Amino acid sequence: MLCGRHPVVAALRNPRRRVVRLCAGEMALGELRQAGLKLPTTDVVADFARFKSRLPEGVPHQGLVLEVEPLEAIPIEAVLARGDAGPLIFLDQVTDPRNVGAIFRAAAAFGAAALVTTKRHAPKESAVLASAASGGLELITWCRVANLARALDQAAKGGYWRIGLDGAAKTALGAAHLSGPVALVLGAEGAGLRRLTGEHCDELARIPIQPDGPESLNVASAAAVALYEVRRG
Amino acid sequence: MLCGRHPVVAALRNPRRRVVRLCAGEMALGELRQAGLKLPTTDVVADFARFKSRLPEGVPHQGLVLEVEPLEAIPIEAVLARGDAGPLIFLDQVTDPRNVGAIFRAAAAFGAAALVTTKRHAPKESAVLASAASGGLELITWCRVANLARALDQAAKGGYWRIGLDGAAKTALGAAHLSGPVALVLGAEGAGLRRLTGEHCDELARIPIQPDGPESLNVASAAAVALYEVRRG
Repeated sequence: MLCGRHPVVAALRNPRRRVVRLCAGEMALGELRQAGLKLPTTDVVADFARFKSRLPEGVPHQGLVLEVEPLEAIPIEAVLARGDAGPLIFLDQVTDPRNVGAIFRAAAAFGAAALVTTKRHAPKESAVLASAASGGLELITWCRVANLARALDQAAKGGYWRIGLDGAAKTALGAAHLSGPVALVLGAEGAGLRRLTGEHCDELARIPIQPDGPESLNVASAAAVALYEVRRG
Repeated sequence: MLCGRHPVVAALRNPRRRVVRLCAGEMALGELRQAGLKLPTTDVVADFARFKSRLPEGVPHQGLVLEVEPLEAIPIEAVLARGDAGPLIFLDQVTDPRNVGAIFRAAAAFGAAALVTTKRHAPKESAVLASAASGGLELITWCRVANLARALDQAAKGGYWRIGLDGAAKTALGAAHLSGPVALVLGAEGAGLRRLTGEHCDELARIPIQPDGPESLNVASAAAVALYEVRRG
């Protein structure tokens, strides 16, 4: 289920998204029709006061819920063959759906080419993730690979310079090699990059932060800063 | 209640924080003692399996819970008199405690001088906010003012250049006037800066994002990017 205006509108605009059913309040339904969106034939005017118990908790729906199939898997080979200009983002065991959703949002905002996670130790598509992504889930290709180290090597062969974000790195992000195609690699909060993942990067870089503050930024904030710097540099 | 290692350790290190009671598992308590932290005399070894129903939902506690008093209010005049080098952050009706927490974290990471919110339309101290702040709540002064526009004018008199983040602004953040003391002003997601708040800024600037992506970044990601740019510039 996708809830709320941004996720639902983005999904209705996404030709790759298969819709099962649209549930909307009358006002929201009218707005979608006025916006010229192609609505599924199974749209249902829902009484959200009654419908509430079936909705995911803590996700604002704004009178709009879309039941969907998960997006079809896209292999990393297909992404590399596309040759998009934007950076790739690799996530190493980042499991919080809010963080991954916010990273999708930043990825779409800064024109990333795709997001790569492992099949395990990554969240699934969910209302929480889609809500945090604010439409980004529909815009950014999500590759789920069996082996992150192997996918990183495929990216390197495809011409990407792999930069692992690591708070202990000597190089500041702004001094990293950011021209040309870049793959940004981010680890889970606390644990950071796994050793093996770090070994499959071409360069480790840190976002310069205060030594007496928190150990790190939130991973979604770190991703946004890194994407901003790549675009800037 | 503060939950988890980072918020609890930061609170125990904060001389301004008045502790009511520490509840910890035996292992966690041992670790705090080994780290040389001054523990309250009312520490309690808690059986977290039993204690669980009393804990805030969805906040990891890692065997550590600290009951505390809210921090004492600090007037903005006191912050301005301090003359810290770091930027000020003004939040205009940002209400989500996770976002405000993540902004505290970014503020501490990038050495901000203080965070200013209104008394109303802002979250209170909570376990959720403190957890997202990852210790930043104890490190960054939080001013709660009655009137944001007035506080912005006080900051201007104190020598701060007020930059409002606005997706519709013509100036890109990197081209804004970032030398000297800066106050960053961020609005709520969706609504953005209120008109009156924007009028009390010296300059409006946007974080350059794709026109065909999401309307904006998550507000905590935007704050991190802006703080990064201020530090960079």
